[in-house]
Amino acid sequence: MKEVTKLMDYRPSVKVLDATLRDGGLVNDFYFSDEFVRALYQTNVKAGVDYMEFGYKASTEMFDESKFGKWKFSRDEDIRAIVGDNNTPLKISVMADVGRCDYKNDILDRADSPIDLIRVATYLNTIPAAADMIEDAFRKGYEVCCNIMAISNSRESDLKAALDLLGKTPVNVFYIVDSYGSLYPEQIERLADIYMEFAVKYDKKLGIHAHNNQQLAFANTIESVGDGVDWLDATYAGMGRGAGNCAMELLLGFLKNPKYSTYPAIQFVEKYMNKLKEDGIVWGYDLQYMMTGQLNQHPRTAIEFTKQKRSDYAEFYKEVVALD
Amino acid sequence: MKEVTKLMDYRPSVKVLDATLRDGGLVNDFYFSDEFVRALYQTNVKAGVDYMEFGYKASTEMFDESKFGKWKFSRDEDIRAIVGDNNTPLKISVMADVGRCDYKNDILDRADSPIDLIRVATYLNTIPAAADMIEDAFRKGYEVCCNIMAISNSRESDLKAALDLLGKTPVNVFYIVDSYGSLYPEQIERLADIYMEFAVKYDKKLGIHAHNNQQLAFANTIESVGDGVDWLDATYAGMGRGAGNCAMELLLGFLKNPKYSTYPAIQFVEKYMNKLKEDGIVWGYDLQYMMTGQLNQHPRTAIEFTKQKRSDYAEFYKEVVALD
Repeated sequence: MKEVTKLMDYRPSVKVLDATLRDGGLVNDFYFSDEFVRALYQTNVKAGVDYMEFGYKASTEMFDESKFGKWKFSRDEDIRAIVGDNNTPLKISVMADVGRCDYKNDILDRADSPIDLIRVATYLNTIPAAADMIEDAFRKGYEVCCNIMAISNSRESDLKAALDLLGKTPVNVFYIVDSYGSLYPEQIERLADIYMEFAVKYDKKLGIHAHNNQQLAFANTIESVGDGVDWLDATYAGMGRGAGNCAMELLLGFLKNPKYSTYPAIQFVEKYMNKLKEDGIVWGYDLQYMMTGQLNQHPRTAIEFTKQKRSDYAEFYKEVVALD
Repeated sequence: MKEVTKLMDYRPSVKVLDATLRDGGLVNDFYFSDEFVRALYQTNVKAGVDYMEFGYKASTEMFDESKFGKWKFSRDEDIRAIVGDNNTPLKISVMADVGRCDYKNDILDRADSPIDLIRVATYLNTIPAAADMIEDAFRKGYEVCCNIMAISNSRESDLKAALDLLGKTPVNVFYIVDSYGSLYPEQIERLADIYMEFAVKYDKKLGIHAHNNQQLAFANTIESVGDGVDWLDATYAGMGRGAGNCAMELLLGFLKNPKYSTYPAIQFVEKYMNKLKEDGIVWGYDLQYMMTGQLNQHPRTAIEFTKQKRSDYAEFYKEVVALD
């Protein structure tokens, strides 16, 4: 059982990362207004959030810039237009997907960039490519995370081999990513144990990125805090692909470090996130995401169900069970 | 750490109790159509649910029958009109609140009633009255639970004294009730430990009734399963006062006992619960409930905020902080 003092007190090494633009951008193709992004930045500063992720560094060779908002590409000059010299304690992050990022060209030296942290996202079968991206970002002077996606249907032996490979890179943080929103808190505890073995061996930190398919994104995040995970992803109003993520306002209310403040988060959700919902942007827990989560499936079928505005949930259940 | 086998396997002593009519009735003043109640009953039978709670046995002296639907009073004849002789494995429950129930008159002998289980709801300061109701129900032949409400702001020493008193009654189950939706899974674990001490001493079972103010109703329920809690309250689509309860469809998807089935639950939510929402009945997680949950306050102010269709969440935050 975890210690009472750990719930009452706080661990200074805990970091909160706002992924609203990045994971939320998957819902609205990254079309956020500049006013929204500026207000989000100000909110993160006021709320004491540690990192703000602006979006992806996606390859403009692979993705048509006319079909996405600018945070799919997160050019340094676009970030600079929001943050100026960023004379705040808030650090800036972007995500770089293995196979979808011209990192050698598009990621500049940190000395010339407003970005502080590069988050490399990979599947278990592309670890060497991820390692190359990590080395590149490290050489350019960045802090580096590695987010290993879709681990809920991976073998533990493969995961351990991947962590052992990544441990030898200069990555700072291994991220537990529950892409399918299918993990229960007890499974998070077990996974955190596996990750911790390699974090200790290679002197790395751990992070978590949860999805809310089973209304467990917040629960899994705070479970992981008790298991030694320090880097916590959250998004305002839980905005993110499909069922969304751990809600920032829930997380800030839980964390006891006095540097965090819930009130700016509530103000932002009231004024900006609820507006997005009124404008018809749809995300968050619903039955179709519960089903793919329970079945440990990729949420793409559920996202399609949402997009088509279907409401025949029982029929959908039969469809996804047939995919199993 | 909990054992893997306990997550993979199941404990036959686990029981699921559907509280949709009772806790959901607090949202719509118990105005459910007979068609709804019949379909709910059939769904519970098909889904393998163990108990169905029809509502309260509220005093007709204290409450005006013209202002509530019939499940506020749950007369035996009204239950009988739905279940007939109830030739199913599903057992029938009603809740009796201390101080709001003419239990000596309104609760008949079990031999003459369709009801199997009386759930006595009490605060910590009315334990002797609860004990009298428990004795009465036991003498009449019922199974008996005792739900101790609002424990999140009670002293542990008072709670222990209450459990020691209740242990000496013929009650079958002590219920952990997170009325304010303010408890975290780690606190549930600690509370379950305290309850278990008295459950072992007096040979009682444990139950949990969670609220979803912090999106933790399901997480707290499954946490408690790992801590030895057997009786689990849930409601379809999480319908219940304020932020609502643990969703039945989530819980059935988690439990591994092959007698439980998720598909009838999904059918019911699609056809009946989503219809209630379309008709304008409002329940479920929202910022105002998160705030009272985080502050460990009674949700009445948040319920009023919802009723008034307010959307000035930041203003509400200032109001509830001022109540602290």
